[in-house]
Formats: sequence, C-alpha cells, structure tokens
Amino acid sequence: MSSKKIKPSKTAKVKDDKPTILITNDDGVTAPGIAALIEVAKQFGRVVVVAPDAPQSGMGHAITIGKPLRLNQVHLFGEIEAYQCTGTPVDCVKLAVDKILHKKPDFCFSGINHGSNSSINVIYSGTMSAAMEASIENIPAVGFSYMDYSFDADFTLSMQVAHDVMSKLIHGVLPNNALYNVNIPKIAIKKYKGLKLCRQANAKWKESFVERIDPHGKKYYWLTGEFQNLDKGKNTDVWALEHDFASIVPIQYDLTDYKLFESIQL
Amino acid sequence: MSSKKIKPSKTAKVKDDKPTILITNDDGVTAPGIAALIEVAKQFGRVVVVAPDAPQSGMGHAITIGKPLRLNQVHLFGEIEAYQCTGTPVDCVKLAVDKILHKKPDFCFSGINHGSNSSINVIYSGTMSAAMEASIENIPAVGFSYMDYSFDADFTLSMQVAHDVMSKLIHGVLPNNALYNVNIPKIAIKKYKGLKLCRQANAKWKESFVERIDPHGKKYYWLTGEFQNLDKGKNTDVWALEHDFASIVPIQYDLTDYKLFESIQL
Repeated sequence: MSSKKIKPSKTAKVKDDKPTILITNDDGVTAPGIAALIEVAKQFGRVVVVAPDAPQSGMGHAITIGKPLRLNQVHLFGEIEAYQCTGTPVDCVKLAVDKILHKKPDFCFSGINHGSNSSINVIYSGTMSAAMEASIENIPAVGFSYMDYSFDADFTLSMQVAHDVMSKLIHGVLPNNALYNVNIPKIAIKKYKGLKLCRQANAKWKESFVERIDPHGKKYYWLTGEFQNLDKGKNTDVWALEHDFASIVPIQYDLTDYKLFESIQL
Repeated sequence: MSSKKIKPSKTAKVKDDKPTILITNDDGVTAPGIAALIEVAKQFGRVVVVAPDAPQSGMGHAITIGKPLRLNQVHLFGEIEAYQCTGTPVDCVKLAVDKILHKKPDFCFSGINHGSNSSINVIYSGTMSAAMEASIENIPAVGFSYMDYSFDADFTLSMQVAHDVMSKLIHGVLPNNALYNVNIPKIAIKKYKGLKLCRQANAKWKESFVERIDPHGKKYYWLTGEFQNLDKGKNTDVWALEHDFASIVPIQYDLTDYKLFESIQL
C-alpha cells in the first residue's frame, strides 16, 4: 500500500541467517521457468516451493472458496522442499504461509513466467497476483516474467536479471518492504542494456473471439487478442522492453482513483 | 487509468436514445442479486445480460485462455435478452462486447454481489473485475455489492442505492467515464444515511485453512479467514459501511507505486 514505510535493508539478517524464500508461479510446478527461478534463488537463501499442479495463466487474483485444496510434496528440484497445490497461485501463497512454513517467508519470488506481464497484463496475471498476495502479507515480493511463451525458452538472461534484482533487494538498493513487477525482453544477452525503473504503461488488449462449431453443431469461442500500447511515455515498462531493457515497476494495490476522488461532489 | 479525462455526462444521448446497459455478476445468472440489478437498470435503458452459468466468487480478474467458452441464451428475466456463459465474469464482458452486442454498451453494471467487496476485497472480486474489464474498454462501469451473503438477502436498500448511483451517473453528477466500487450496508432502510464518496480502506484477510482428512485418509484444506481493517481513516469504504452509509470508491488500474517510483535510484 502507499502507506508502507520504506525500511532499511535486511542485510544484517541475511549475513547471520539465511533468509527463507518462497517460490511460486502460475505456469505450474513442472514449467521450466520455475526451475530457472529456483536455481537463482537458492544462491540467496533456503528455498521452499509451493506452486500449482497445473497451468494457471490468466487466473488473476483468483482464490478458491467453493472447494477444498490439496497439497502434495514433489521431488523435482534436488534437495529443495517443494509442493504442488490444486489451487490458484494466490492459494499457493496462502497455503504456504499457513500450512508449510508456519511463518512468513523473508521473500516471495513468483515466476519466471513464460510470457510478458508488463502494463495491463499485471491485472490478469497469476504470477503477479501470487506476488501481490505475499505483499499484502507484508512479505517483500517480486514477480518475474520473460517475453517468450515457449516451453523451450532460454532463461539465461532472465536468470541474470533475477539474480540482479534479488541481490539489489537483499542488499537494500531496492527498498525491500515492497512489491515489484519485473519483465525481461527476449533478446540476445549482448544486446541487453540493463534494469530500468518504470511505470505501468497504459495499454490494453483488443480482444476478439474465434468462433467455431463443435462436432455436435454447437458454437464455441476461443479468446484471442491483439496488444495495444496507448502510451507514448519513455518511462513505461513497454518502452523499456522494446528498447532492450528489463523493466521493474514498483506495484501497489490501493485502487482508489484519487484524482477523481478529489474532483467529485456528491 | 489516471490519465483518463473527466468528460461531461452523456445526458443528451440518454434523452434522445435509450442507452444500452450490459449487466453481469460473479454469483451466476440465477443469483437473486442480478435480478435485483436488472430491475433497476431497465428503468434507465435497454438491458442485456451476460453472466456466468455458475458461481464465480473470488475469481479476481481471471480470464479463460486454455479452453473454449460457451454462451447460451436463457429466459429468466421476462423480456430482457440474457445469456449464460461458461467462463469467468471478465470473459462475460469480453464475449458480450464481441459476440452479443457487437459494440460497446453505454454502461456496464456488475452485481448486485452477495457479500461485501469493500477495501482489499476489490482485488479478489469477480464482480469488480467484470466492471474493471468494461472500464479498460472505456465503458463507464460500476460494481455493486451488498453486505449479506445469504441467498434470501433483502435487496430493497441495495436497489435504492443502485438507482441513486445510476441516476447520478447518467445525469453527470458522477463523472461517467469512470469505474466505481459501490458497497451497501446490511441495515434497516430507515437507518440508511446516504451515499458517501470514499477511498479504499487499507485492510486485509488474516487467513487460516481448516485441515480435514478425507474418507481415504488424505488431507485437504478449506480456506477461511478473518477480515482485519488496518485503517483508522474516516473517509474509507469500511468506515462508511460501519456508519450506515453506502460507500462509493472511484477505481483505477494503474498499479504503479509512484511514491516508491520517485524514491528509487537504480
């Protein structure tokens, strides 16, 4: 929230005592992106993984109210303690804190998402919602997303950026009582220009549905869409990604439109 | 977005030509709350209903990417054109614009939700996400929620508040190129003090999961939680609702934390 104080870094704690790092994602526990994130995070502390057992892309800030959840340990990442959950990314964070860790972790990192979560995508993104849920619990949190949807994506640059961000967080270059949305461009490493602090671009999806007829003669619809950047600013995440930077946007979740709030007389 | 201009009302248009009003919700097309909202909205224009075929509470801004959607006409509201959709509340709005209306409606009203969507609930709420999706499409939109979860809830006061808000929107007392989160207290009508312009309270849910054992000896978890208001302000939605007002919060979806943005040096 905007009322959060910017606190000094936890460097002292990190030196004395390895931080506990919760890792989750929305592509599911078997996605290559989460394995890449774990590889980086384990250099900074004790990693515990709680992630969905199936892809949950586009789940936004969904939580599971109407049915129970299951949690099962998996052995996918060597010595790392890991669980798959039948719920959404937000459920994973809630369950991890309450039933696995029994305390708040020192950091929560979500991703690395297969596909961009820049600009308006932040509100549809399960990756970012998991990180936001952690932030609501006052856990410093970052969502990482890489602009390559493919299963075979090369996460080398993404891992370099994740290492840079985690290091900046843990050493206090980035205020760590906060939430960040980090996106990484799909470019050759030698073209990479660095991490750029950005605001969320004003952009949207122009949707259209592909209409098809099933074998029984009934219509069905597939969501498709075209991304539209409505923002000419040079300090936006979309601009940064188009110009070979990785973007980092500090995120808050007080959705009040204060400009409008000030202008209305009821 | 915060970059939106506050435009003059569409009063002239309303007088000449009945506005098209899209109605949706997250409790499903058979929930009593949507019937109550339709009753009010049809006094202001041509109503078209596209709502989920099953409850979608807590779905946040989820969209359906990995499977196709179905849309079926229903005859539940007399002469009103109505459809049920297999998707989320956000899917309903997208499908309504693209496949039912073939144009943007003049307004989108979502609800009346069975249960509060004040403060932090806005980010978990399918009701508000449907309204937000409309707003991303530049459709003036309002989510209405009533602080009574029961199926037998009495919507009389909620309908009075919805009528008041729609009237203010259509007549330009409220800027209509905007998005609002309206919550209605569960009180006797004679105690009701009016509509209060508010900001989103800083609050959260303290979750805990009830752990149970299934008939096969395996654990499962039910999400429960306790609402915690962390905000002492008297201009918040939570304060208003506790003091017999209905709350109206103007909402935007640029999640950039500008205070933090200004403070960081990378």
